[in-house]
Amino acid sequence: MKEVIYRVRVEFGDCDPARIVWFPNFFRWIDAASRQFFVECGVPSWTETEKTLGVIGTPLVDTQARFIQSATYGDLLSFHVGIAEWRGKSFVQRYRVTRGDELIMECDEVRIFAAHREGGGIRAVPIPAEIRRLCE
Amino acid sequence: MKEVIYRVRVEFGDCDPARIVWFPNFFRWIDAASRQFFVECGVPSWTETEKTLGVIGTPLVDTQARFIQSATYGDLLSFHVGIAEWRGKSFVQRYRVTRGDELIMECDEVRIFAAHREGGGIRAVPIPAEIRRLCE
Amino acid sequence: MKEVIYRVRVEFGDCDPARIVWFPNFFRWIDAASRQFFVECGVPSWTETEKTLGVIGTPLVDTQARFIQSATYGDLLSFHVGIAEWRGKSFVQRYRVTRGDELIMECDEVRIFAAHREGGGIRAVPIPAEIRRLCE
Amino acid sequence: MKEVIYRVRVEFGDCDPARIVWFPNFFRWIDAASRQFFVECGVPSWTETEKTLGVIGTPLVDTQARFIQSATYGDLLSFHVGIAEWRGKSFVQRYRVTRGDELIMECDEVRIFAAHREGGGIRAVPIPAEIRRLCE
Repeated sequence: MKEVIYRVRVEFGDCDPARIVWFPNFFRWIDAASRQFFVECGVPSWTETEKTLGVIGTPLVDTQARFIQSATYGDLLSFHVGIAEWRGKSFVQRYRVTRGDELIMECDEVRIFAAHREGGGIRAVPIPAEIRRLCE
Repeated sequence: MKEVIYRVRVEFGDCDPARIVWFPNFFRWIDAASRQFFVECGVPSWTETEKTLGVIGTPLVDTQARFIQSATYGDLLSFHVGIAEWRGKSFVQRYRVTRGDELIMECDEVRIFAAHREGGGIRAVPIPAEIRRLCE
Repeated sequence: MKEVIYRVRVEFGDCDPARIVWFPNFFRWIDAASRQFFVECGVPSWTETEKTLGVIGTPLVDTQARFIQSATYGDLLSFHVGIAEWRGKSFVQRYRVTRGDELIMECDEVRIFAAHREGGGIRAVPIPAEIRRLCE
Repeated sequence: MKEVIYRVRVEFGDCDPARIVWFPNFFRWIDAASRQFFVECGVPSWTETEKTLGVIGTPLVDTQARFIQSATYGDLLSFHVGIAEWRGKSFVQRYRVTRGDELIMECDEVRIFAAHREGGGIRAVPIPAEIRRLCE
């Protein structure tokens, strides 16, 4: 499994009045880590793939996350990301978030490759072979 | 199970270049819906409960979400929220998000009641009986 | 000057470790208030105007804001919004944010009506007469 | 004037349906750049300064921003930040945001050093001499 690391420094404004990271920010970073994974594997921007493959992004179908330790501002977090499983029209993207040796959170996502649907909205397309090849 | 409805109108800036809600925003709204639930049940602000019970908030331990339909700006979403299960030091908060009759997403969260821990960070406290009474 | 009021309840996650609204959130609400103004004036969604007028939104050119009082979670804020001035290719959108009788912040923005530019990016278009008529 | 550079890679989710950075995100980065400035000048975390000086952060009083070019995902932005002016109880923090040679936006902020006020809210304190010395 190819692994890419996306690094984040937690900012003051990422934390809530309890002084810990406000959790939706973890999903913001996870989404950036997801994208970073494709970038480092050599997949072009979605603006590009929209033209060539009709693919406009990789929206979430399902997510499952476990929050183990809280984090606060000044912390440096590493998002270790890879694709744990390929299915017909979806894939499982997996994240382990660490601060030094400590595990902060874990997340498994099911995502699809999406195209615009006639009349609005989006639809899943089969995993593009050229993208899968770059990411394995 | 007590149920509270938290309503959201999706804004332009909540959507990404694929023109659908950028998913971390769903967790932003879910967190607001979680809080709204406690407010409508009569639980005081965490600033208040910090003084009386030491409770500074209800951080997430675990979350599981299913995204069924995409949403876009202008949509009116209803977050139906309740507490599906009470455990010793945690509880399961459940969300069903609808747009009219359509189911948009579902989410189950495990949360704790947190207090500051000596030396920084947070710790789980047993479910405060007076809060549970208000929420059942 | 037509005035529209956009209402916001400040959420826990909108506040930072100093327990006050983290200021970028004010701009998030201002952007929503800007859009709300057009909606209540009867201007269709930007998805619609893209088809009819090429207009994809009203990006900011310039903003000037004064923060007078801090706000915290639980507060109810009213964003009073109108268009203070029409220019050739831009307009000034004005905001007064109140909590009850108290003035919380003020903001003046210069915005344009934008269209896609050949080769990427955006460009300003002259104020569409039909939109101006609806907003005066 | 001491200058610090804060670097940002624009993410997919930072952009709106017009495919350009949704402007409140610029203020999010500006706030992080503001903090980064103090960190690189050797000012301790606000958690630390709260104990030693009562200072809990540097909230905004006034902001003025000019948006010159739009940015989109994949762009690398540099936030050049310094303190342009010291006043009695406030200071002007200045930002120039570039993408390579291009100027993307400019911003001047008036900020204060804030402490908790008895009974809630915050108040400005005189510029702490030890902080000013580190930042000049």
